[in-house]
Formats: sequence, C-alpha cells, structure tokens
Amino acid sequence: MMSIITLTTDYGLKDHFVGALKGKILTEAPDATIVDISHNIDPFNTAETSYIISAAYSSFPKGTVHLIGVDAERNLENEHIAMLWNDHYFICADNGILSILTQKILPQQVVAINIHDRLTVDATDMDVFKTVACHLAKGGLLNVIGREIKTLKPITDLQPIVSKTGDSIKGNVIYIDHFGNVVVNITKKLFIETGKGRPYEIAIKPKALKTILPNYSAIAQSGKFPVKNYEGQNLALFNEAGYLEIAIFRSNPATVGSATSLLGLNYRDTITINFLPAD
Amino acid sequence: MMSIITLTTDYGLKDHFVGALKGKILTEAPDATIVDISHNIDPFNTAETSYIISAAYSSFPKGTVHLIGVDAERNLENEHIAMLWNDHYFICADNGILSILTQKILPQQVVAINIHDRLTVDATDMDVFKTVACHLAKGGLLNVIGREIKTLKPITDLQPIVSKTGDSIKGNVIYIDHFGNVVVNITKKLFIETGKGRPYEIAIKPKALKTILPNYSAIAQSGKFPVKNYEGQNLALFNEAGYLEIAIFRSNPATVGSATSLLGLNYRDTITINFLPAD
Amino acid sequence: MMSIITLTTDYGLKDHFVGALKGKILTEAPDATIVDISHNIDPFNTAETSYIISAAYSSFPKGTVHLIGVDAERNLENEHIAMLWNDHYFICADNGILSILTQKILPQQVVAINIHDRLTVDATDMDVFKTVACHLAKGGLLNVIGREIKTLKPITDLQPIVSKTGDSIKGNVIYIDHFGNVVVNITKKLFIETGKGRPYEIAIKPKALKTILPNYSAIAQSGKFPVKNYEGQNLALFNEAGYLEIAIFRSNPATVGSATSLLGLNYRDTITINFLPAD
Repeated sequence: MMSIITLTTDYGLKDHFVGALKGKILTEAPDATIVDISHNIDPFNTAETSYIISAAYSSFPKGTVHLIGVDAERNLENEHIAMLWNDHYFICADNGILSILTQKILPQQVVAINIHDRLTVDATDMDVFKTVACHLAKGGLLNVIGREIKTLKPITDLQPIVSKTGDSIKGNVIYIDHFGNVVVNITKKLFIETGKGRPYEIAIKPKALKTILPNYSAIAQSGKFPVKNYEGQNLALFNEAGYLEIAIFRSNPATVGSATSLLGLNYRDTITINFLPAD
Repeated sequence: MMSIITLTTDYGLKDHFVGALKGKILTEAPDATIVDISHNIDPFNTAETSYIISAAYSSFPKGTVHLIGVDAERNLENEHIAMLWNDHYFICADNGILSILTQKILPQQVVAINIHDRLTVDATDMDVFKTVACHLAKGGLLNVIGREIKTLKPITDLQPIVSKTGDSIKGNVIYIDHFGNVVVNITKKLFIETGKGRPYEIAIKPKALKTILPNYSAIAQSGKFPVKNYEGQNLALFNEAGYLEIAIFRSNPATVGSATSLLGLNYRDTITINFLPAD
Repeated sequence: MMSIITLTTDYGLKDHFVGALKGKILTEAPDATIVDISHNIDPFNTAETSYIISAAYSSFPKGTVHLIGVDAERNLENEHIAMLWNDHYFICADNGILSILTQKILPQQVVAINIHDRLTVDATDMDVFKTVACHLAKGGLLNVIGREIKTLKPITDLQPIVSKTGDSIKGNVIYIDHFGNVVVNITKKLFIETGKGRPYEIAIKPKALKTILPNYSAIAQSGKFPVKNYEGQNLALFNEAGYLEIAIFRSNPATVGSATSLLGLNYRDTITINFLPAD
C-alpha cells in the first residue's frame, strides 16, 4: 500500500503546473493518492508555508510524504532535503521552512538529496521532488536518495518573546486565514507554561480580551441570547494547530469585515499577552 | 465498494483546512473517493450552499455522501444532522440548508447526530462530520450515529410568489455564477404549471425577454448569422438544475461584462415573469 | 487499467460545475483517476487553453484522455471532435484549440463525435464529452464514437514571424502565469534554427537581454553574490514547455511586481529577438 503524497506550493491554480506535477507523480506511481494542502501560498513566503505545513501534517496518517514546492529552487545556498520527522516525510529546499517543526521535536533523519545527476540534464526542481516523493511513498529509504546531514538551516521566522519577569509574552501575527482570522505565534503550550494559571489580558484595541475560548461555539454557550447576537464580537481561542487565534464571530472579509480588517491586525504585527497578579 | 464522499464548504483554497479534512477522511477510510463540489461558498451563506448542493447532487451515483461544511457549528440552536434523501446522504448543521431539497421530496430518514461524546474532548465539528461520512460511505446505518428526528429547520430562503390571479411569478436572484449568469428561484416546473402554455414576458431592462431557450447554443440555431454575431445578446433559459437563468451570450465578467453587471441584477433582486392572454 | 482523464475548463472553482462533471465521470467509470489541469482559464479564451494543454500534456502517461471544456458549445460552426495525437487523446470543440499541437506533429486520428442522438434529449456538451472520455479511458476506439475527418479548424492564434533576411523573430505574448512571468510564442526550436548560434538581443525595455538562461537558478550560479542580490533582476529562459519566457527573478505580482507589471508586457504584445553578426 502506497503512502499518501501531499502537495503544498505557491503555484496558484490557473497555470498547468500543479496538474503537470500530478501527471508526473501518477506516471511514476499510478496508484498514488495525492492530496492538495494549498497551492495559494503567497509566492516565496516560507513563513506562511511553515505555518500551513505545521497545521496540516497531523491530519494525515503516519508515513505520509509531504512535498513542498515553495522557494524550492536548488542553488548555492539551499540544498534539496528530505526529512523523516514524527513518522512523516517532508521534501523541500533547505530554506528554514521545516524549523517550525524541528524546534518542537527533533527529526528522526535528514538527508541532502543527491540524485540530481541520475536525472536528465533538464530535470526541474519538481522532477527531483516527485522522484523522491514516489520513492518514499513506495516505502523506499532516505539513504538511497541522499546523504545524511545533521543540521538544518536555522529558523529565520519571527519568534515569541517571554519577558524577563515572565509577566508577558510578545508574539506576532504569522498567518491570516480565509475568514480574516489572525493567527499568532503563541502556542497553548507556551501560554500555559508562562501563565501558570494567572489571569491575563490580550492587549488589543479597542478593548483587551480577558478570555481565550476553547472553540468558536463557546461564545454563545450560556444560552442567554440567540447565537445571532454574538455576530461581530471579538474573541480569542487556541486553534486546532495549537496557536492563538484572534477572530470576529462569523466574520466575512468581503462583507461585514474580519479581525484583520476591523482590528487593524496585519502580518508580522505584535500581539502581547500580559499576565496579572492572581486575585 | 465505498461510496463517494463530496465536500462543499466555505473554507476557501488558501488555508490548510480542506487538505486537512481530506487527510482525516483518508486516515479513517484509505480507499475513499473524495470529490470537491465547492470550497468557495460565500462565508456562512446557507442560501448559496442550498443552491449549489441541489444543483450538484444528481450528478453523483446513488449512495453518495455529501458533507457540507458551511455554518456547521453545533450550538444551542443548530444540531448536527444526517439525512437520507432520494438515496443520497447529506451531513450538515440543521440550519435550513437542506430545505431546498426537502420541499420537493420528503426525506427517507433524518437523524440528529449523537456521537459527540464518543469522540475526544477537543473534536471539532469537522471531526464529527468526517466520522459520520466515513461510517455512511462504508455502508453504515444512520441509526448507529444518531437518533431519528421528524422535522428539519423550516426553509428561510427567499421563495417565489405566484400572484393571486395566476398571471405572474415573482422570483429572486439566488446565485450568480462564474460567468456572471444570474440564477432565479423559479423552476421550470413552476413556470409550466403556472403558465399553462400562455405567452410570457420576463420583465428585465432594457428590454423584456419573450423566449426561454432550451440551451445556450439555441440562440444561433437559425444559422442566419455567424455565432459571433450573437455575442453580448441577453437570453433566458432553464439551466441544468431546472432553474431560470438570465445570461449574456459568451459573457466574461472580467472583460465584456455579464448579466449581473450589464443588466444590474444582484443577489436577492426580484425578477417577474408576466403571463399574457393567449393570442 | 483505466487511463487518466484530465480536465481543463473555464468553469472556475466556485460553482458546482467541475464537481458535477467529476460526479458524472465517476458514475460511468468508478475507477477513473481524474486530474485537474486548470479550471481558471479566462472565459472562452481558446489561445490560453491551447498553451496550457500544450504545456501540460507531456507530463501525463501515453493514453491519457484530455477533456477540454472551453468554448465547448456545439453549434453550426463548431463540431465536437476527439483526436488521437502523440498517443494522447483530446476531446473538445473544433474551434482551433488543438492547432498548437497539430502544427508540430500530425494527428494519428481525428473523428467528429456523432453520439449525440444516442444520448437523452437534454444532454449537455459536457454529457457528450464525459461519455466519450469514459469510453476512451476504458480503451474504446475512436471509430465507435465518431466518423473520421481529415482536417481541423486552421490555427487562428498569433504566429511568430521570421524576417525575410532571417535576422530577427517577432513573437507575441501568449500567456502570463501566476508569477506574472510572460510566455512568448517563440520556441527553443525556432530560435536555434533561425539563430544558428549567432549572438542575439531580446529587445525589451529598459534594457535588451543578451542571454537566455537554461533555468531560474542559473542567474546566481557564479556564486559571486548571495542569491538575494539577484531578486528583481530581469531574465529570459526557455521554459519547460519549450517557449521563451521573460521573468523577474523571484517576482510576486501582489507585492514587488512581476514581468508583466514592471516591464509593461501584456497579452498579445510583440517581442522581437534580433540576431547580430557573429563576432
């Protein structure tokens, strides 16, 4: 049984690139199951890619092969790599994309792909990646397509900062989703370790948020008012990927507006959580 | 043999949500055939979803499972439901989405999904839906995942109105498609039953339409002029889903314009068909 | 084993049309592997479709069936046709879309589809195409679904022109991709045959390009400067499909701009390559 191959690229959906990549995979592995994660990554945006990959991988079975076609060009600075991590495979250029994963859990094995001279002279970056993806999906070993390396490019993305006193966390907006919800690089784990149960405030305008909800429907759980009454209200929660998310209940960027438009929060903006003395 | 699972959501195609949902389905049912109907539904727009589902379902084989992720949040007002109707399965929140179907044909069985406490505490709405979808696609029974209910939320969408004299039908624009064609909630069936063969006029500006064509190519069927001569001409027809559609021959919203832009017809606007005395 | 069926349409991804088409194919051929090439073709744009098809087909295995739903309406001017070419099948209306292929290699067989009266009276153009696609994907013969014809609609797209002296080639922009890169209808083959190794200049503003690179990474291959230094630089290369492409290194149409925006190159614009006396 072949593993699933997922695709994450910045190729967009108008051109033939994604279809052609699938054609090449199916030529080599006719039984492959291919799943699109996203092809609408902002061009060359490795930070966005990191978030999308880290949020998506765990929905797939162990052994899945994740092919990442963003900033995938092999040049003197970036090698092509393949990594086994948490029982999932990742194929990409060594441009920092995987550091969001490897700072949490160490990789099981990483190789610098070295099959380039076995391919035709006009092989593209994607020809390399699909060859490796089909090899791994069929159960092939990493050693066969690369030489083991010990270090990955260090993380270059924005990192959350805990104040010296431990009384606040400064994070940054790392992603804005389809609904205009704002994702912040503060994880539930960091929040719990730093806050230790203290009361807190998320400093946003016009009014600080004092509660992080477990999920969207929790906003109307009291049953006091119809659900409709809560539309347009600000809220914070930890999303399924474990990150702080600031949202507006039932937002629609095209009509009523969203967290990014109404709260004026943009990519890379700072968000601070202040912990307060226990009552 | 597993049934097909279709997906209709307002998740968009940039985020990882659709890919992650497919990953979860394939984890539970590795042989599933998953087909996207649309992920670009206007956020939370249940009327648009109703139309899309009613227009698409009949292209799939009996037994297909249609998972609907629009306004899918389970709260004190909306239960999660699963319905067997016309030998197709539908999974959604009980928010009126299915009424466009059930006003035509009564459902065979409807259940309120009650598996929530069998899932983990942080299971999302989509975790519930994919569990039910995989169960049904494998041939499982509705009774196993819910308790039977007898009524669905009543229809809340716009309804066409036949005048007391039976001389006119007032409908509303319920959908505007990719080509800018305008879909009206007047079905061929209602038109025939009300009109009884009388001449008619569709009252639009600048000039009423006196013919509803059987299809697009019919406009140039006389062969008098080259097809190109008809470009830009207004026309009306009953589309494949059985609804009145007002269109401009070979429209392109980005260049020459379309029915919605050129005729000034927007979502929810009223369209009237007047029946005239037989000659 | 069934052949792959690819889909190329101008239906967009919001409406249910693409999902419904897949449903109909899977109803008739439950084991079909369906691959999307593009559904975001500019409405009715046969030139764009030609380019996309010619760039994509060779990534698929021999025997693949390519269904083309652009300007697919059957009318008094355009018949529905199916073609076997270079061991691939193509199904479309006879509107010139295939001429970009047939001017390079002659088709093995072309038929005018004649199954229309075997289908129901309200069968759509897509019902015809999916029936033919499933027939061919299952290994069926062209003769069974059409009568052989000898000529296709002549090419109507823009053609490159070699000057009488053989000292220049005038081409036109035929496609602008997701990254804003500009594709010109001058092939590597025509360039080599005409240039015969002479030096050349691609006359673009602000500064003519004197080199056509083998691929994107070649721009930074000297290793003199970090890759980042080359961002924003103009370059020309022959793309994977064999066409001249004018690009800006690491362009992003939404932020820093792209070849189309920064160089002012639009669809149908003229691009000239001048050959110079050998040194």
